[in-house]
Amino acid sequence: MLAATAAAAARRLIEAGRALAARGWLPAGSGNLSAVVGRDPLRLLVSRSGADKGHLTDEDLVLVDGEGRPVDGGARPSDETALHLAVVATHGARAGAVLHTHSVWATLLSDLAAPDGELVLEGYELLKGLAGVTTHGHAERVPVLENSQDYAALGARVAAALAARPQAHGLLLRRHGLYAWGQVVDAARRHLEALETLFEVEGRRRQLPAR
Amino acid sequence: MLAATAAAAARRLIEAGRALAARGWLPAGSGNLSAVVGRDPLRLLVSRSGADKGHLTDEDLVLVDGEGRPVDGGARPSDETALHLAVVATHGARAGAVLHTHSVWATLLSDLAAPDGELVLEGYELLKGLAGVTTHGHAERVPVLENSQDYAALGARVAAALAARPQAHGLLLRRHGLYAWGQVVDAARRHLEALETLFEVEGRRRQLPAR
Amino acid sequence: MLAATAAAAARRLIEAGRALAARGWLPAGSGNLSAVVGRDPLRLLVSRSGADKGHLTDEDLVLVDGEGRPVDGGARPSDETALHLAVVATHGARAGAVLHTHSVWATLLSDLAAPDGELVLEGYELLKGLAGVTTHGHAERVPVLENSQDYAALGARVAAALAARPQAHGLLLRRHGLYAWGQVVDAARRHLEALETLFEVEGRRRQLPAR
Amino acid sequence: MLAATAAAAARRLIEAGRALAARGWLPAGSGNLSAVVGRDPLRLLVSRSGADKGHLTDEDLVLVDGEGRPVDGGARPSDETALHLAVVATHGARAGAVLHTHSVWATLLSDLAAPDGELVLEGYELLKGLAGVTTHGHAERVPVLENSQDYAALGARVAAALAARPQAHGLLLRRHGLYAWGQVVDAARRHLEALETLFEVEGRRRQLPAR
Repeated sequence: MLAATAAAAARRLIEAGRALAARGWLPAGSGNLSAVVGRDPLRLLVSRSGADKGHLTDEDLVLVDGEGRPVDGGARPSDETALHLAVVATHGARAGAVLHTHSVWATLLSDLAAPDGELVLEGYELLKGLAGVTTHGHAERVPVLENSQDYAALGARVAAALAARPQAHGLLLRRHGLYAWGQVVDAARRHLEALETLFEVEGRRRQLPAR
Repeated sequence: MLAATAAAAARRLIEAGRALAARGWLPAGSGNLSAVVGRDPLRLLVSRSGADKGHLTDEDLVLVDGEGRPVDGGARPSDETALHLAVVATHGARAGAVLHTHSVWATLLSDLAAPDGELVLEGYELLKGLAGVTTHGHAERVPVLENSQDYAALGARVAAALAARPQAHGLLLRRHGLYAWGQVVDAARRHLEALETLFEVEGRRRQLPAR
Repeated sequence: MLAATAAAAARRLIEAGRALAARGWLPAGSGNLSAVVGRDPLRLLVSRSGADKGHLTDEDLVLVDGEGRPVDGGARPSDETALHLAVVATHGARAGAVLHTHSVWATLLSDLAAPDGELVLEGYELLKGLAGVTTHGHAERVPVLENSQDYAALGARVAAALAARPQAHGLLLRRHGLYAWGQVVDAARRHLEALETLFEVEGRRRQLPAR
Repeated sequence: MLAATAAAAARRLIEAGRALAARGWLPAGSGNLSAVVGRDPLRLLVSRSGADKGHLTDEDLVLVDGEGRPVDGGARPSDETALHLAVVATHGARAGAVLHTHSVWATLLSDLAAPDGELVLEGYELLKGLAGVTTHGHAERVPVLENSQDYAALGARVAAALAARPQAHGLLLRRHGLYAWGQVVDAARRHLEALETLFEVEGRRRQLPAR
């Protein structure tokens, strides 16, 4: 049963990696992708360190436990597995899959918004692409955290930020990129695409000369 | 006869969805597409709620009547069917197909132009891609309406705006996106592509520093 | 012999149309393409009015004489055939093929540069993609003409502008687009791609805030 | 053994050319690609002058010696072979492959940064895509040299600039483009993609109005 769930999740992650790479959101082999395939005990299928995310194969996906240790040995999971685990542990069923991208606009906007600690997206119809949002009047508050190479400590900060924002669909790391999640891989893709598109709108808006 | 017309329209809508998604104009599953397949009584083939518009199948297209009710039961039509119906009812044979996109530039320009109630595109050769326009001297006045989640009320506002502009080829909803139409699906696609391209030109122009 | 030359030119034009459309430079069915297939008397193979330039077939290409009249009857040639003829007549063997695009940057730059009557591209290595240019120190002076729907009169203005600039590789029509040419179709494509790329560089440079 | 190494390198260069052209980074036939296939004596496989880098074949790749002379006669190597040789001679095993692109952002940024003699990229997670970089705190100092058509003299300047920066992964020529390198072709591609992406981030940042 775990094997069948994992095989189905792997197909969706491979397809998501292909689509996100085609958008230019996973440059230079960056980014990583994961899906929960068991909750008790926690089992997460996550892309391995160094894989080409645009051309993932089954061998590039590693099954890890709740501490990020490979269950069956084999390839080394992504260094950022701790951040994926922080998201899926904090958000429960709302985060059955986590996708992480390094797009140009996420990189730039995360830096501009970092002093505020959040990027607020409000008044856009496209926000309705986020699960549970039913009106463009919604204000999506995307937390923005300072980046770090200490992933254990950063994972704790991610968990704290998300615990304080139980309705969030994504999180930005400064000059680093976007984490987005959803109940399943395709929902996470939809959330990621809505957020990335609105980052581009907001970024282009900020390039308008002041009046 | 309705069946043959509907099958042909379905093929063109599926191809249009694929092409518009490839341009990035239908992010996160947004947007919707329709074609009139009968006028007496009115029969509209419209994408169902939640479909992946880049990979539409026949099952994703629902036949509805003039009130937006599915004729044969089955899938739920797009929530914005009322807006499609407002366009095809007001513009008659000029609107045999309606395409709705959520591009970055349409989202941004609709917001900038909303205080004026319209976006004026003038002096561009590409305007000749719009049916009935024979000179770049043409001024295309694209109405811009405030967005709303009350689609029945919004449909009435759309109908009123279009009744006042019988020559329009498209309409913007603020921070939401573009509706464009034409006699047939391919004409609607041409109009949409001309308008989206000119939105990008106008948007980039506004990013120039003031002199 | 004419037939073999025409068949070879048709293959190159069809491939050029596909490639230019994929770049988004032929929006809404705009643009047109031609190749000289005989010089004495002049025979020009030109895309027909209304063709989908991204998916040209042999039937979309019309053979016309030096006055733009179809030699074998059949489809109506592009309305802008007079401009293609003005280029090939003025520039002789340097213009064995002419490609015309409606890109976003050509549309915007042609407008900004129109008051100067020319757009000067200078100091770029990519200029060496233009036939006869051997150093980045070259200054390519692209004439910019006011647009017109009187194609006969505009053709005469194009011929006069090019007679005054016998080394030009392209010409802009204001808020309309770019004409580029070369000895053969592939050379015209190379020139067009070099010019369009440099238009984008110049356009983005102008978006930088003044210092 | 040289033949097998060369055949494997050719496959990777052909694939790299296809991918870089698809990104629009090799406009108008510009750019060139090379891989070291022997060190004692030096043997470099380099794209021939005038080849279509998006559709390279084995015949488009020439084997040259340490002076840039074709080992087996045949096609003329790229005019910029001297620059490739300067990189591989100065950086040794760190530069087993060299890729050169002419992107819009590299062209623009190289011009803006030229007065400083370098472009500094700092604080970006994506820098970890560069070999040997383990933290976003890294500052990548990309040398920017004035362009020249005297490739022998320019090669000497490139060698001097790289000798002074033994940790560099890329080099910009003003209004010309980027050279990037890595131990093997795929590493050079990863470095090039990381640098090009960060050029776009930096370029868009500079378009923000001053506050």
